[in-house]
Amino acid sequence: MIKHIYWKSGTVYVLDQRRLPAQVRYASCRDSRAIADAIASMLLRGAPLIGCAAAYGYALEAHRLKGASAAAWRKRLESAGALLRRARPTAVNLMHAVDRMSRRAEELLASGAGARSLAAALKKEADLMFQEDIEANGRMARFGADLLPPDATVMTICNTGTLATCGVGTALGVIREAFRRGKIRRVYALETRPYLQGSRLTMWELAQDKIPATLITDNMAAHIMKTEKIDAVLTGADRVAANGDAANKIGTYGLAVLASYHEIPFYVVAPMTTHDPDTPRGEDIVIEERGAEEVLKIQGLPIAPRGAQARHPSFDVTPRSLITAIVSDKGVEAISACNRASPQTKLTALR
Amino acid sequence: MIKHIYWKSGTVYVLDQRRLPAQVRYASCRDSRAIADAIASMLLRGAPLIGCAAAYGYALEAHRLKGASAAAWRKRLESAGALLRRARPTAVNLMHAVDRMSRRAEELLASGAGARSLAAALKKEADLMFQEDIEANGRMARFGADLLPPDATVMTICNTGTLATCGVGTALGVIREAFRRGKIRRVYALETRPYLQGSRLTMWELAQDKIPATLITDNMAAHIMKTEKIDAVLTGADRVAANGDAANKIGTYGLAVLASYHEIPFYVVAPMTTHDPDTPRGEDIVIEERGAEEVLKIQGLPIAPRGAQARHPSFDVTPRSLITAIVSDKGVEAISACNRASPQTKLTALR
Repeated sequence: MIKHIYWKSGTVYVLDQRRLPAQVRYASCRDSRAIADAIASMLLRGAPLIGCAAAYGYALEAHRLKGASAAAWRKRLESAGALLRRARPTAVNLMHAVDRMSRRAEELLASGAGARSLAAALKKEADLMFQEDIEANGRMARFGADLLPPDATVMTICNTGTLATCGVGTALGVIREAFRRGKIRRVYALETRPYLQGSRLTMWELAQDKIPATLITDNMAAHIMKTEKIDAVLTGADRVAANGDAANKIGTYGLAVLASYHEIPFYVVAPMTTHDPDTPRGEDIVIEERGAEEVLKIQGLPIAPRGAQARHPSFDVTPRSLITAIVSDKGVEAISACNRASPQTKLTALR
Repeated sequence: MIKHIYWKSGTVYVLDQRRLPAQVRYASCRDSRAIADAIASMLLRGAPLIGCAAAYGYALEAHRLKGASAAAWRKRLESAGALLRRARPTAVNLMHAVDRMSRRAEELLASGAGARSLAAALKKEADLMFQEDIEANGRMARFGADLLPPDATVMTICNTGTLATCGVGTALGVIREAFRRGKIRRVYALETRPYLQGSRLTMWELAQDKIPATLITDNMAAHIMKTEKIDAVLTGADRVAANGDAANKIGTYGLAVLASYHEIPFYVVAPMTTHDPDTPRGEDIVIEERGAEEVLKIQGLPIAPRGAQARHPSFDVTPRSLITAIVSDKGVEAISACNRASPQTKLTALR
C-alpha cells in the first residue's frame, strides 16, 4: 500500500495526489501553514485524510514550540488550529480533527506539560487518529460488504479509497472487502470532473488490487444504469448532517437522483468523524466554491475560449430521501426504501 | 459567421472542430472517402451538419466521374453512398442525406444525364440541402423561442449551434433567437465529456454572440438545477424515433432524468431530417460505441493509469416520457406534461 502521508523527524511528507498516476512526488510540510496549503490546493484530499493531515499539521506546530510560556504556546496552537480549520469549508473531519487536537492540547497545557512532552503527546494523538481511521475503514468495509448481493456490479464516484483515508477507504473500502469475499463482478468508476479523482486515483487503486473496473465519464452514468445491471451505487461523504442529508463531491447528488430513478440502492459510506450532529440539515452545509480556472482547464490545458466564465461548486448535497442507507463504523442505518435493496439486508439504527 | 464547410473547385474544405477553439484549421476533402473519414473521426460533427457533409461527399464523387458508362457511374456512386452511410451509425441525417442524393442521382441517370450535368446537378442538390437546413434552423428557432418565458435561464448540452448545422443551430438556434428577443438571462453550458463540445464549441459560439454563458462540468447539472432557477433544458437530437424517443449526445438522457426530477421543461430541438419514421422506438436506435482511448485521454493527455478499461457509448436515448416537447421545423409537438411548462405555450401536433 502506498504511503500517502508520513511523519519523519519533524516533517510531514504528503503525496501530491494532483500528479497521480503520472508522477509520484512528495511535498514536505514543516508547519501548520504548509499542511493548510496542501489541503487548500488539493495536494491531498478526501474527508478522512484531510482530517488526519490537519491533526499532523497541529502536531507539527507543537513540535516547533520553543522557549516562551504556556500562554504563548496556547496562542500559537490556537492560530494554527484556526488556519487549518479554514483550509477547506465542507469536510467536517477537518473541524473535528482540529477540535480534538486542541482539546488534547488544552488538557496537556492545563496539566503543566512542557514543550517537549506537549509535542510528543500531540504527535501521539495524531497517530492515534490515523490508527482509528484505519480501524473505522475496516469496520465500514465489513458492514458495507454485507449489503451487496453476490456477483455485484457497482458504481462509484470520486476517490474514496486509501488515497482519501488512512486505511482501505470508505466506499472503496466496501468494494475492496466485497471483492475479497468474491462478491464483485465489476466496478464502474465515474471520472469525476473537474479533478478527475475517479480516472486518476480510483482506477489506479482498483488496478493495484486487480479489481475489474471500467472508467466512464460522469455523463455516462444514466446510460450505464439503464443498459447494464447495476446493483448498487456507493459513495463517500464530506459531511453527514444530523438528519441524514449528505454533502459529497460534486456529481453525487445527480448520481443519487439517477440511482433513485433506476431503483438502484444508493449507499453513503462515511465514518462517524464525517457525521456532524451540529449541522441539522443539508441546507446548512457550506458548499465550497472553488476557482473557475479548474473547470476552464484540464490539468493546465485550456478547454474553453479565453474569457469564458465557469462555476465550480466543489460539492453538492444529497437529501436523505435519495439515500438507501448510510454505512458508518458503528453500523448501517437504513434511510429510504429502495425497491431493489437486498431483502437479506440487516439494518441497525445508529441515531 | 465562421465557414465550417465549403466547396471550391471540386474540393470540400471542412473546419477541424476537434482543434477549436485553440486552432482554426481546414481539412481538404477530394472524394467521398475523405468526407467519410472526416465524419468518422469527428473532424466535423452534429447530426444536420454530417448530413450536409455526406451530401457534399456524394457530390464530390460525382464530380470525379469520367468517361465510362452510366452503369459504372451508378456503381461508383452506390459505393460512395454505402461508405458515407457507414461513417457513423446513430445520426439519421446521414442516411437521409445519402438516400436523397442517390434518389436524385437515379433520376438523373434514368433521364440520360452526362457526367458533367450529373455532377452539376448533384452539387446543386447538396447546396439545396444546405440551404434547406438554414431555413429549418430559422423556423425551429422561432417556434422554440416562443416556448421560453421572459428572462429565462436555460441549460444545454453538447454543441447544437452553427458548428452542428448549416444555420443558427437547433437548440442553440432557439437560444440565439430567444436572446435576440431579450428573453435570455443566462445559458449554462455542460462541457460534454469526452469531446468537450460544450466547453470548446458552445462556449465559443455563445461568446461570439455575446450571450451570457457559464460553463459547468456535466456532473454539476443537478446541483445547478437545485440551487439556481433553471427555466428550460434545450438539447438537439441525432435521431428521433417514430414514438418520440430521442437519441442524442451521451449525457442527454441523464440530464432529462434530472430535469424531470426538478420539474424543469425539457425540449428536444431537431429538424424533420433528424426524425426517423422507420425506427419505431428508442430501443431500436443503434448507439455508436467509440474507442475507449477517447475517454482515457483528454486531448491526447492520459488521465487514467496505463491499461485501464473504459466504455464510450457516444449517445444515449431519452424516452418520450421525459421530453416535454419536440421542436421541429414543422412546429412544436407536446410530448409529456411538465409542471413548470409555461401555460401560454401553444402546441401544435406534428404527427
